[in-house]
Amino acid sequence: MQPQRDPRGLWLLLLSLFLLLFEVARAGRPVVSCPAACLCASNILSCSKQQLPNVPHSLPSYTALLDLSHNNLSRLRAEWTPTRLIHLQSLLLSHNHLNFISSEAFTPVPNLRYLDLSSNQLRTLDEFLFSELQALEVLLLYNNHIVAVDRCAFDDMAQLQKLYLSQNQISRFPLELVKEGAKLPKLTLLDLSSNKLKNLPLPDLQKLPAWIKNGLYLHNNPLHCDCELYQLFSHWQYRQLSSVVDFQEDLYCMSSKKLHNVFNLSFLNCSEYKERAWEAHLGDTLTIKCDTKQQGMTKVWVTPSNERVLDEVANGTVMVSEDGNLHFQQVRVEDAGVYTCYAMGEAFNETLSVELKVYNFTLHGHHDTLNTAYTTLVGCILSVVLVLIYLYLTPCRCWCRGVEKPSSHQGDSLSSSMLSTTPNHDPMAGGDKDDGFDRRVAFLEPAGPGQGQNGKLKPGNTLPVPEATGKGQRRMSDPESVSSVFSDTPIVV
Amino acid sequence: MQPQRDPRGLWLLLLSLFLLLFEVARAGRPVVSCPAACLCASNILSCSKQQLPNVPHSLPSYTALLDLSHNNLSRLRAEWTPTRLIHLQSLLLSHNHLNFISSEAFTPVPNLRYLDLSSNQLRTLDEFLFSELQALEVLLLYNNHIVAVDRCAFDDMAQLQKLYLSQNQISRFPLELVKEGAKLPKLTLLDLSSNKLKNLPLPDLQKLPAWIKNGLYLHNNPLHCDCELYQLFSHWQYRQLSSVVDFQEDLYCMSSKKLHNVFNLSFLNCSEYKERAWEAHLGDTLTIKCDTKQQGMTKVWVTPSNERVLDEVANGTVMVSEDGNLHFQQVRVEDAGVYTCYAMGEAFNETLSVELKVYNFTLHGHHDTLNTAYTTLVGCILSVVLVLIYLYLTPCRCWCRGVEKPSSHQGDSLSSSMLSTTPNHDPMAGGDKDDGFDRRVAFLEPAGPGQGQNGKLKPGNTLPVPEATGKGQRRMSDPESVSSVFSDTPIVV
Repeated sequence: MQPQRDPRGLWLLLLSLFLLLFEVARAGRPVVSCPAACLCASNILSCSKQQLPNVPHSLPSYTALLDLSHNNLSRLRAEWTPTRLIHLQSLLLSHNHLNFISSEAFTPVPNLRYLDLSSNQLRTLDEFLFSELQALEVLLLYNNHIVAVDRCAFDDMAQLQKLYLSQNQISRFPLELVKEGAKLPKLTLLDLSSNKLKNLPLPDLQKLPAWIKNGLYLHNNPLHCDCELYQLFSHWQYRQLSSVVDFQEDLYCMSSKKLHNVFNLSFLNCSEYKERAWEAHLGDTLTIKCDTKQQGMTKVWVTPSNERVLDEVANGTVMVSEDGNLHFQQVRVEDAGVYTCYAMGEAFNETLSVELKVYNFTLHGHHDTLNTAYTTLVGCILSVVLVLIYLYLTPCRCWCRGVEKPSSHQGDSLSSSMLSTTPNHDPMAGGDKDDGFDRRVAFLEPAGPGQGQNGKLKPGNTLPVPEATGKGQRRMSDPESVSSVFSDTPIVV
Repeated sequence: MQPQRDPRGLWLLLLSLFLLLFEVARAGRPVVSCPAACLCASNILSCSKQQLPNVPHSLPSYTALLDLSHNNLSRLRAEWTPTRLIHLQSLLLSHNHLNFISSEAFTPVPNLRYLDLSSNQLRTLDEFLFSELQALEVLLLYNNHIVAVDRCAFDDMAQLQKLYLSQNQISRFPLELVKEGAKLPKLTLLDLSSNKLKNLPLPDLQKLPAWIKNGLYLHNNPLHCDCELYQLFSHWQYRQLSSVVDFQEDLYCMSSKKLHNVFNLSFLNCSEYKERAWEAHLGDTLTIKCDTKQQGMTKVWVTPSNERVLDEVANGTVMVSEDGNLHFQQVRVEDAGVYTCYAMGEAFNETLSVELKVYNFTLHGHHDTLNTAYTTLVGCILSVVLVLIYLYLTPCRCWCRGVEKPSSHQGDSLSSSMLSTTPNHDPMAGGDKDDGFDRRVAFLEPAGPGQGQNGKLKPGNTLPVPEATGKGQRRMSDPESVSSVFSDTPIVV
């Protein structure tokens, strides 16, 4: 039999427990005082140059700036802070000996905006290492031993604006970081200077908007010397982009194990850089970008006759679109001249001049009224008529030669209708809208043997091509014949 | 006679001069390379912990961040940088021995946004010292020897958001920095902790909006203990303001040379803090602020019956004004209850509850239909009538006394008309609209000797007050007489 307990003792225990809970609740949150090694000024904790081998324990949850620079930290583990520091905005860890950062190290600091990991001994960046830092704006990783940038290390960093990777051992250009609309949509500064880059994706770099190129630092790298590189940087210099203008003496390339300044490649005999004019033909649709060095500028276009271009088409065919680009609906000869874009930004203003040349003829010849559907229909009807003529109106003697012929006729008619009903709709042949000039130049080249419409190979046509006979000649495209419609009429999509 | 100079030599000299000029112009700007003591990553110059006695000469003009912390700098002269650093955004000078900063030191860096002068030996801040830094957002001055904050040291710093003055020797509270609409309109954090503050302007502090009080750090100061201080910080604690909640253990005050925690002043027997309800009377006009801890929040008000208050008056007399405040045009009894303001911000959301008590009577008595213009007009006519009665309808024997009387009558009539035609429009007497309750309480106090309307002194009334005679009594305000209209009717502006 159990001894009977005194109910008053139980009540007292419950009461004291309740009072304890009440006291804890009243305090609101556990108050953590300033760590011994640090200097504390409200929400700033300055613990720099204290020879700390580890991050001080129990940091106050209200900390907004934590300075741990010039210490002896070597590893940043997942549990470096037991409390979540949701107010932490700046974490300074430069001038330590960090060679390891846990992939979960930044989970407790989700609102970090500035992270300084410069002057450490980092070699690799794990995938998704910084992915939790979705509010991070500036990341300093210069003066480490980083060999390669992992494709996924910077995933989901939608707010990142500045990434310093200078003075590392990087040998591959991380194009995925700068492609417009890619992983880092707000990135305006990528410092890759003083690394081991040899080859650059030059055509991709040339296509980038000026506000990315302006902050793309590539000096002090052993780049491969060639004229394309010279042309690229000459264009950047012409546009006065900071990445080139500020470091033109440090822009090197390597040839025969010797370093040369990129703007002094006389041994390569590169043609001198000249800014190209925009070229268009009568009736073309054209969009000219106001490619400014800064995002979000207010843009105003002025015509060669010093008139402001309006947002809506008034006189003429030119207007400014919502994104500040100059848009021609149908280019006319009198549209030629130098257009000027005045861009007003927060930090500075910019003036851009663009020359437009207009050729006094259309690339379409005089078939302006023809379109794809119309020519296809006409071609189809003509083919049927020709086949019917061939079948029924040829002299009777042809029927006497043998029995193999009719089967070959069937093949011919099929081939003919294939040619006429499926014009070459290869989307690549059209290219970008910006690249309209190149596309149209291609039409002027004579179609060589083995080429389909527009001088391009037509791999889909697997029917056997008969040897040159009277009938075969009739099927071949001939500029003078009726079927020249198929080869010379451009396909306006 | 001078020897004839060879003109070819002059031409050669001019030509070489021209070529030299051309070369300089071609270079665009003088290219300054990275200083020897610094580590350079594109626009960052890190020169920390290099035992530098002076700032390195000829810094590159494109520098955006200059780190000179942990060096031996003692003076920052006007000419510390010969080139203007218009791109410099962050200047780090902490952990040096700076004891002098020239009043022109910041002229070459007009676009600075972050200035760290913490952990130095600064004693004074010259007037207008930081006035050129009109883009500065964060200024760190903690851990220096600053004795007083000059009234003009921070003039024209329209963008300053955070000012850290912790761990100095400051003994006077710089109220001019935090007054709303004052010199620093964007200041959200002022750290005055660990100084020598003894007295605080408590009524002024209480009036500040919550978004300023939330970042006003005052802990670790030898404040003077009294119940008003306790009430102030208790209110801040009730509102969960960071400046008190994060440092409630460090909020001290001093009494009899002993330090006490502000929330543990049992020896003063202060009445316990209780959040007051808003009080109003029937028909009152009332504005209740949604006093949030953050600026620029979206605010929604909900009535005691859980209905959302609209921007325009629909049913009832309550509406939300453009700045998110609750506005009653004519308070009714059924308006009483607890109103809730839901505020949505970028960083966090907030919920504020406000209780409204409505007294079932007007403070105006039943004179609702009277207004200032009406009573003034009636008073004026009555005065004229009384003067005329006095002049013409008094018994004839009065005319026989002497000739001095008429002149004193003139004075009396003037005084009388002054009283009646100029009701006391002192703007201070009404107080803030928020403070409506206090204003109305004042009306209930009986007017003492020497006080004007509403119990306040009326310094403008310089006419000699005659001693208590029959005429004087007639002019005195009397609750039972007709002229009581002047003293009891509140002036609704």
